[in-house]
Amino acid sequence: MKIISVVGARPNFMKIAPFIRAIEEYNASLPEEKIEHILVHTGQHYDDRMSKAFFEALNIPDADINLGIGSGTHAEQVGQTMIAFEKVVKDIGPDWVVVVGDVNATLACSVTARKENVKCCHIEAGLRSGDMTMPEEVNRLVTDRLSDLLLIPDKLSGENLKKEGAPERSVVFVGNIMIDTLDANLQKASSLDINQIIKKNALAIDESIDQRSLSKPERRIEGMPPAPCNFAVLTLHRPSNVDEKEILTPIVNFLCDEVAEDMPLIWTVHPRTQKQLKSFGLWDKVTSAENIILLHPLSYHEMLRLNMEAKIMLTDSGGLQEECTVLGTPCITLRWNTERPITLRQHGGASVIVGNNIKRIREEYQKTLLLDRTPTRPRLWDGKTALRCVEAILNY
Amino acid sequence: MKIISVVGARPNFMKIAPFIRAIEEYNASLPEEKIEHILVHTGQHYDDRMSKAFFEALNIPDADINLGIGSGTHAEQVGQTMIAFEKVVKDIGPDWVVVVGDVNATLACSVTARKENVKCCHIEAGLRSGDMTMPEEVNRLVTDRLSDLLLIPDKLSGENLKKEGAPERSVVFVGNIMIDTLDANLQKASSLDINQIIKKNALAIDESIDQRSLSKPERRIEGMPPAPCNFAVLTLHRPSNVDEKEILTPIVNFLCDEVAEDMPLIWTVHPRTQKQLKSFGLWDKVTSAENIILLHPLSYHEMLRLNMEAKIMLTDSGGLQEECTVLGTPCITLRWNTERPITLRQHGGASVIVGNNIKRIREEYQKTLLLDRTPTRPRLWDGKTALRCVEAILNY
Repeated sequence: MKIISVVGARPNFMKIAPFIRAIEEYNASLPEEKIEHILVHTGQHYDDRMSKAFFEALNIPDADINLGIGSGTHAEQVGQTMIAFEKVVKDIGPDWVVVVGDVNATLACSVTARKENVKCCHIEAGLRSGDMTMPEEVNRLVTDRLSDLLLIPDKLSGENLKKEGAPERSVVFVGNIMIDTLDANLQKASSLDINQIIKKNALAIDESIDQRSLSKPERRIEGMPPAPCNFAVLTLHRPSNVDEKEILTPIVNFLCDEVAEDMPLIWTVHPRTQKQLKSFGLWDKVTSAENIILLHPLSYHEMLRLNMEAKIMLTDSGGLQEECTVLGTPCITLRWNTERPITLRQHGGASVIVGNNIKRIREEYQKTLLLDRTPTRPRLWDGKTALRCVEAILNY
Repeated sequence: MKIISVVGARPNFMKIAPFIRAIEEYNASLPEEKIEHILVHTGQHYDDRMSKAFFEALNIPDADINLGIGSGTHAEQVGQTMIAFEKVVKDIGPDWVVVVGDVNATLACSVTARKENVKCCHIEAGLRSGDMTMPEEVNRLVTDRLSDLLLIPDKLSGENLKKEGAPERSVVFVGNIMIDTLDANLQKASSLDINQIIKKNALAIDESIDQRSLSKPERRIEGMPPAPCNFAVLTLHRPSNVDEKEILTPIVNFLCDEVAEDMPLIWTVHPRTQKQLKSFGLWDKVTSAENIILLHPLSYHEMLRLNMEAKIMLTDSGGLQEECTVLGTPCITLRWNTERPITLRQHGGASVIVGNNIKRIREEYQKTLLLDRTPTRPRLWDGKTALRCVEAILNY
């Protein structure tokens, strides 16, 4: 059996790493029925210093084929990926194309595979935000509509697919493959020193913070007001949060004037966000704010380390919502919706949706400050999802 | 309101012509609320002599914008169309993108519209063959999944969309827009002389046929065996019929040795089919067969004229299945499935599916020979579909 798997942008890397390892394990156990695996990197983020570093940190082998697509508009990325990937599919003649997540490469390669009559498998199928203005939602809808095998991370995703008429046999509940990566990397992350992470990645650092305090959380005493907090972690990258001055400004004010008053705030600044902060005249405010530590985007292990110790996470990233659930970090999600409802507190997760309305953010932030870390594991988020993915393909 | 409508390949032309006319009528009746309409031609078939001729014959105004995509692989067509169409959408900023049918342009432009957060309307939504190996099926599935407004030709299509979870308010039953075109062109087609059509388009003609007999069908007398037949019309272009020697050869044998024995067979030869007939060594057989009249692809009116008088239609074209239903021409569909079940005899239509199994083709052909012309009109196939399309967009 010949399988091409595809990685596009960075969020894909954490999903493909365990899948590749599971294929290697399968091949080691059954050398006479080896799966031939070809890893295609579409090239998004390829020139980025982070891409190579992520591959190495997550032990992903070098891509067999790099399509070299680079950045561009949505149509440019999707269109050029289709054209380049079609040649690869025609050339290699795979039995399966495996796509992960919801980036432009996911859409482009699933459409191309189906047009070439190659079976397509989607890992992380069935997620729905219900928000068609998100390009990721468009990518998910198209990929799931065309995939022969839909591997879902939770039962709620299965319900979405059922509502859309996906045939029962095409849907297999395998769990969340990102958690395989988390489990495999917890130990390595634990060994990192938080002060070192900050020093190494500092973008603009406030020297007044006593950094030693960051790594020694004090326990809160039951019935007492919260003890002096440890630190908060913030990530923000979605256009809906950072592209409009009227939205970003009050968020920045809240962060500087309220969160950073309570505790040190570690902000890993996405390049898009940095650009917008500068163009909206907010950059000076955040760099000069006391108690705000601005960092470059972190490696997977560095971010995992921060998440393991943070008092609170503020984010608009879907992946971090999931990791917070497993690590138990109380999480505030700065979005109006989520394609990952299983991570919400009402479903047993660690996160709450607050949109970008400051009144609501403040209210939920205050409530969240009172919460303890409560790690939970949704069903089949057990670190063995990748093996089930390989099995599902073999059993198809 | 600003609407971009898109035409790609030829099957789109008959669907867009009445839509444009309906917008013109709307604008004439309400000049103070004019719809601004921009026609985009993706350029597929543009160099083809037939494209310009079709535009003129169907009174379609010149395209405002031609993307100049030309031919290529599926991914090349889809990818390049996306890239070029995105620029148009960003530049014009339409309220709606209207796509028709199921060609590559339909897929490319619906994805691009949704990614640009422009509302998308699909005319001829909800058709399903259930055959994912058809590129058209992939185009339909993706376009319908992303469209805000799904305009369906019949209730069966609505059931398909319901099964796929399409929200009720997004689906509007408007009827079949192709029939608007048929109705608008029946009179002009009637004026054409069949012998002239044959002379004008002859690819290789058998002079032994008494051509006068073609245009004077004899009526069959009730209870008697069928009178000497008039003529059969054949079109064949699908890869599933013409790309494999083992499939095309027995079909050609059946046509030459059986159908052409019963009556003159007028075969409008698709370029792809001509190429395959030659490469499989079948070209000599069909050109030298008695009673087979080989024609170039015909204009819309010429084909309509033949369809109006044919004793029997043999085809793998979905559009002809529909026209046969309205004209009452008994039709044999050389496919294993159809995305237009409303055209089948069990649903009141004129067509029967025979795949490419010769035993089955022969059996159904014999039965079909006994049938009279029985024109039927599925609900809302009334020539007023385009007006309902415009209304549905305005009412959204």
